[in-house]
Amino acid sequence: MNNRIREILSWYTNETPGVRANLARMLNHGRIGGSGRMVILPVDQGFEHGPVRSFTANAAGFDPEYHFQLAIEAGMNAYAAPLGFIQAYADRYAAEVPLILKVNNSDTLYSGEDPCPAVTSTVRDALALGCAAIGFTIYPGSAARNEMYEEIRELTEEAKACGLPVIIWSYPRGSGLSKDGETAVDISCYAAHIACQLGANIVKVKPPTAHIEQAEAKKTIEKHQVPIATLADRVRMVVRSAFNGKRIVIFSGGAAKSLDEIYEECRQIRDGGGFGSIIGRNSFQRPKDEALKMLAQIMDIYGGK
Amino acid sequence: MNNRIREILSWYTNETPGVRANLARMLNHGRIGGSGRMVILPVDQGFEHGPVRSFTANAAGFDPEYHFQLAIEAGMNAYAAPLGFIQAYADRYAAEVPLILKVNNSDTLYSGEDPCPAVTSTVRDALALGCAAIGFTIYPGSAARNEMYEEIRELTEEAKACGLPVIIWSYPRGSGLSKDGETAVDISCYAAHIACQLGANIVKVKPPTAHIEQAEAKKTIEKHQVPIATLADRVRMVVRSAFNGKRIVIFSGGAAKSLDEIYEECRQIRDGGGFGSIIGRNSFQRPKDEALKMLAQIMDIYGGK
Amino acid sequence: MNNRIREILSWYTNETPGVRANLARMLNHGRIGGSGRMVILPVDQGFEHGPVRSFTANAAGFDPEYHFQLAIEAGMNAYAAPLGFIQAYADRYAAEVPLILKVNNSDTLYSGEDPCPAVTSTVRDALALGCAAIGFTIYPGSAARNEMYEEIRELTEEAKACGLPVIIWSYPRGSGLSKDGETAVDISCYAAHIACQLGANIVKVKPPTAHIEQAEAKKTIEKHQVPIATLADRVRMVVRSAFNGKRIVIFSGGAAKSLDEIYEECRQIRDGGGFGSIIGRNSFQRPKDEALKMLAQIMDIYGGK
Amino acid sequence: MNNRIREILSWYTNETPGVRANLARMLNHGRIGGSGRMVILPVDQGFEHGPVRSFTANAAGFDPEYHFQLAIEAGMNAYAAPLGFIQAYADRYAAEVPLILKVNNSDTLYSGEDPCPAVTSTVRDALALGCAAIGFTIYPGSAARNEMYEEIRELTEEAKACGLPVIIWSYPRGSGLSKDGETAVDISCYAAHIACQLGANIVKVKPPTAHIEQAEAKKTIEKHQVPIATLADRVRMVVRSAFNGKRIVIFSGGAAKSLDEIYEECRQIRDGGGFGSIIGRNSFQRPKDEALKMLAQIMDIYGGK
Amino acid sequence: MNNRIREILSWYTNETPGVRANLARMLNHGRIGGSGRMVILPVDQGFEHGPVRSFTANAAGFDPEYHFQLAIEAGMNAYAAPLGFIQAYADRYAAEVPLILKVNNSDTLYSGEDPCPAVTSTVRDALALGCAAIGFTIYPGSAARNEMYEEIRELTEEAKACGLPVIIWSYPRGSGLSKDGETAVDISCYAAHIACQLGANIVKVKPPTAHIEQAEAKKTIEKHQVPIATLADRVRMVVRSAFNGKRIVIFSGGAAKSLDEIYEECRQIRDGGGFGSIIGRNSFQRPKDEALKMLAQIMDIYGGK
Repeated sequence: MNNRIREILSWYTNETPGVRANLARMLNHGRIGGSGRMVILPVDQGFEHGPVRSFTANAAGFDPEYHFQLAIEAGMNAYAAPLGFIQAYADRYAAEVPLILKVNNSDTLYSGEDPCPAVTSTVRDALALGCAAIGFTIYPGSAARNEMYEEIRELTEEAKACGLPVIIWSYPRGSGLSKDGETAVDISCYAAHIACQLGANIVKVKPPTAHIEQAEAKKTIEKHQVPIATLADRVRMVVRSAFNGKRIVIFSGGAAKSLDEIYEECRQIRDGGGFGSIIGRNSFQRPKDEALKMLAQIMDIYGGK
Repeated sequence: MNNRIREILSWYTNETPGVRANLARMLNHGRIGGSGRMVILPVDQGFEHGPVRSFTANAAGFDPEYHFQLAIEAGMNAYAAPLGFIQAYADRYAAEVPLILKVNNSDTLYSGEDPCPAVTSTVRDALALGCAAIGFTIYPGSAARNEMYEEIRELTEEAKACGLPVIIWSYPRGSGLSKDGETAVDISCYAAHIACQLGANIVKVKPPTAHIEQAEAKKTIEKHQVPIATLADRVRMVVRSAFNGKRIVIFSGGAAKSLDEIYEECRQIRDGGGFGSIIGRNSFQRPKDEALKMLAQIMDIYGGK
Repeated sequence: MNNRIREILSWYTNETPGVRANLARMLNHGRIGGSGRMVILPVDQGFEHGPVRSFTANAAGFDPEYHFQLAIEAGMNAYAAPLGFIQAYADRYAAEVPLILKVNNSDTLYSGEDPCPAVTSTVRDALALGCAAIGFTIYPGSAARNEMYEEIRELTEEAKACGLPVIIWSYPRGSGLSKDGETAVDISCYAAHIACQLGANIVKVKPPTAHIEQAEAKKTIEKHQVPIATLADRVRMVVRSAFNGKRIVIFSGGAAKSLDEIYEECRQIRDGGGFGSIIGRNSFQRPKDEALKMLAQIMDIYGGK
Repeated sequence: MNNRIREILSWYTNETPGVRANLARMLNHGRIGGSGRMVILPVDQGFEHGPVRSFTANAAGFDPEYHFQLAIEAGMNAYAAPLGFIQAYADRYAAEVPLILKVNNSDTLYSGEDPCPAVTSTVRDALALGCAAIGFTIYPGSAARNEMYEEIRELTEEAKACGLPVIIWSYPRGSGLSKDGETAVDISCYAAHIACQLGANIVKVKPPTAHIEQAEAKKTIEKHQVPIATLADRVRMVVRSAFNGKRIVIFSGGAAKSLDEIYEECRQIRDGGGFGSIIGRNSFQRPKDEALKMLAQIMDIYGGK
Repeated sequence: MNNRIREILSWYTNETPGVRANLARMLNHGRIGGSGRMVILPVDQGFEHGPVRSFTANAAGFDPEYHFQLAIEAGMNAYAAPLGFIQAYADRYAAEVPLILKVNNSDTLYSGEDPCPAVTSTVRDALALGCAAIGFTIYPGSAARNEMYEEIRELTEEAKACGLPVIIWSYPRGSGLSKDGETAVDISCYAAHIACQLGANIVKVKPPTAHIEQAEAKKTIEKHQVPIATLADRVRMVVRSAFNGKRIVIFSGGAAKSLDEIYEECRQIRDGGGFGSIIGRNSFQRPKDEALKMLAQIMDIYGGK
């Protein structure tokens, strides 16, 4: 294990040896293994957005096996998906790529103002399927936030006792926030901080915009002239809010976009001290060869080559 | 066990041996046993629609014994019903036809906008009664969907540990959807996919119409010119959404209709790659001899003769 | 045990020996023991309607001991009451008359549109008090119906494992139904069927009127010219809806009325195939000697003398 | 043990020996021990009304020790209070006066239309603190009544198994009742009856007024010319509604008032067959010497001297 | 152990030895250890107000390690924070300063009218992390108050059995109170009393204003001419409401303000019999050297030097 990985693990000394070992396993796996950065493939869009919308563009993705293979061939650090997808091929591929079981999920057939995912699988499922971690979404800003915070408290206790790290997808959303507020820089910082306080080992947030949602935060940012102009600036703020950079924070890729936009985003995340990207739609909605090229490029950005 | 059954079972390698054995038992049972297709008799209409409306046309059906006998004489793959009906004659017939305990049920004496069935029996009941599987209804699109998803998560864990496969009736319904949306092709695909992600071994959906409910799905279908004109086309989409055909998807028969309509529907389901039918009212509301002839004809369609 | 009792028990072969023994105990007890019919004394009106309204007419009834003695002297098949009343004298009388612990209850100090009783005692209470069965009320048609269905599922599992039969009071009521609908013939059939599907060993419903509540049921009844003119006709429909007569269905007496009306009602219930009556207010609100005469007359009607 | 105490205990033969022993302990304790009557000191007003309002008039009452001493010096049958107050000095005084742990409590910082107390302590607390009983408030008439009835069902089961009697404070209140209805004579009877049906060993109600809340009760009272003119008349009705006098019913004192009013109230309670009083504010808001004189006088009324 | 500490511990004789030992540990720790007063550092503002607003003024505070070091260098009695912050460095510093795990937390991304924190960590977490106590917030006045009271009942039972004292942050808030009422003197007294009745070992409230919220309390205060003019007067009332001074009551510092204001507040708290202060924002939002000077000054005020 190199020094950077050792340094990262030193932030997690209160975790069980199992949690630390699985963190190391994900950090050391794949094309940029050992760099201290991570690029993860998440495929929960079938559940979250529906299969037609998610997989028609690249129909190979209807098959759960495709995503395992994509993650393996691209040399990604880990592959995250809901129970059904993981269950379909865990026995064949759990030894080839670290698996993250996404234990709660939302669909868009019903959308209330205050979202709350269903807990669709368990720590026991993750263990039985040979996973390296569990993933969980919280929606700070939702009237149902406490339900999520208390679910993840219970899951975290069980997961860590079993040696599984906890990755929190922290997505501000709900009646407490404006639409712009969901990706506002102050709110992104807040979302990352809450996830860390809840005990997350890895936090996933969206790339923050320059919007500021809360009056008190605006006053503070202006008074202290905190730079927020570039994405790198804003990523820096988020990373600092995650225990001053002592928690792994990765950023989601969002809707499919041009390659140049993606690469630029990754460079800014890297320059702001972000630990990597979690890229779903931009990966599996492209033909496989294009996706592999793109992912190699992204990993090179993060691997520093 | 023939090669087709072996192939189907190969999609379920992460399940317990008991689950696989019971899947094989249902696939290999009856007139089309071994074909890889299934025709199942469900009789929960007494609970769901009321006994007067369900059984008066063929009054023999008031007696729970009738349905066991019908399923056995017709050579169906399995018989599904709520606790009371199964309990009445399980001791006499559990060895003659695979039984599916329908563990949740709704009645129509109260109908809220956002339906949620009651869990009316348990995995322990299913085991005590010698059942081969449990059945469970979810209503994606209902504000109460999470309650159902979390109930089936718990039941699935218990059922599979006990060797019982899980069959999910996935019926989109509730305030998140229009009336037409309940059987829209994109929604049917979505409903089947959710059921698979929740860990269903067999999924039951309604035959989809050509209506498309969600704007994003419409855009995708039009952009990629996905064929949806015939029922076979639409069944194909649903089957693909169920892990690219690697989960057993069967289709319900709906309200009583003419024989020709029924046969045509089954042919299209078969041609679209569907795994079979689950036919309740069209079976037990007909006089027994008529029902037996109809079911033989349907099974011949699926059996490929 | 005579043949009729043996026949009735043959419908319950999937129950534990304890449940069957207690069913036999109630069927064989008292003045019409062995006839296959039952007349039961229920005294939950103190809880349901208040003690002043229930017991002032015959003030002896304020004393819990009175009702045990009334049931014993009249030779009734069983005595049903809430925890407090049973607890008061169970040690003295449990060996003299089968006791039914009514494990849920409603009062009328608060009345919401969608009723739901409180679970006020347990299977352990019933066992400790030497009871022969538990009683439970469901209100199909109430928005809270699922809560009741799931409570009785749990209680049923526990009760039957302990050898206690389950008696369901199935009273349609709530925002899903009109006032007339509560006793409509189609709804009474539906209510009896639901109770059977939930696993009830004995079902108690109100005598149905000729009103038909649901459009689809009306269409069916008219199309098939199902006779509903007399109470006997309607009782026949209810009994058929209770698994074609293979579950014990008894009918409540309702508000106090004239003796002739009571006797005529019982004759019709008997002629329609009903299994008996459960008569509370008409028994304990009369002076004891009058009540004993009336009950003897009723039991003679059911006993066929 | 004298005959009256033996007679009272004979109503509780279905309780555990521990429950009967603790009932005897309270009945036999203090100045009127053995009379079959009880005078109890309750001090939950700090929680229910706030400490400023409750204890300023006699500031010694801010100290939890004061109330133990008052109860002991006055020779009361028992002292009832919430967890904190009992916990403060249980080790010093549990052997000197029977303690009743009030296991649920309401504050008046939030007052909804349908009150429901919080369960603030447990049977295990009561045991650890050497208490002789638990106390619990129900609010019949509240939309939340079922929650309370089900809580007390669970607590009762545990308490009695551990030898602790259950005392129910039955206070009609909530959206099901008018303000006058809270102390109406029919409602007081109903409240006492419900508490007994729930398994209470001792019931506490407020002194009933001559108001009648429910139409059916009014009709009955008028038809049978039940006397309700004096408090003694009304107490008699309440006691009869409590299993014909076979449950201990005591009456609360209410807001502070003149000594003559208090004594007259106690005489009427006694003459109506009430078992005693539970007097809080009238005791601890007076200077200690005045309170001791008043309590001696009250106990003499009940002790029959 | 000196006499004052012995006296304080004498109020807690009904607690487990572990609880008493940990109380002593906190009372005896740091610069004013043994004085019977406490000054505690709480850092939950990152969760409660957001990291940007909380830590930008003194950016060192983004790092969880900073606060441990501040508490240690200042010689504070204890350091309180949510799970994530404690977890980050518990292994390094648990032996150097008593740690208080704040087991519930609210964020301000969603703010309902009736606040309720999420329970974000457990007693087992506190034990594993070597903490000396748990902290818990209640909001009397909120419609959700019962949920909090019942959560703390369960946590208290578990914590005390494990030797951990319970500190309740009692903050009146919610639809039952006016804005001014949240810090009204009568309400502060009430809030402290409730916390004590719930079993708190240490209570934290806000410094009360001279506003009186409830009519009955106003009447009482005026009638008995209770002095409320100075903060010392009002602190005296609060301390008396906390079991006549036999529970440790400490006061929060509130928003950042001038040093003179802070010192004056502490003097008044001390003169009114308050047991100390819990000072968050005023500590960690200042540069460290300024904070250390201020804390030394405050502790000297409490230490009586």
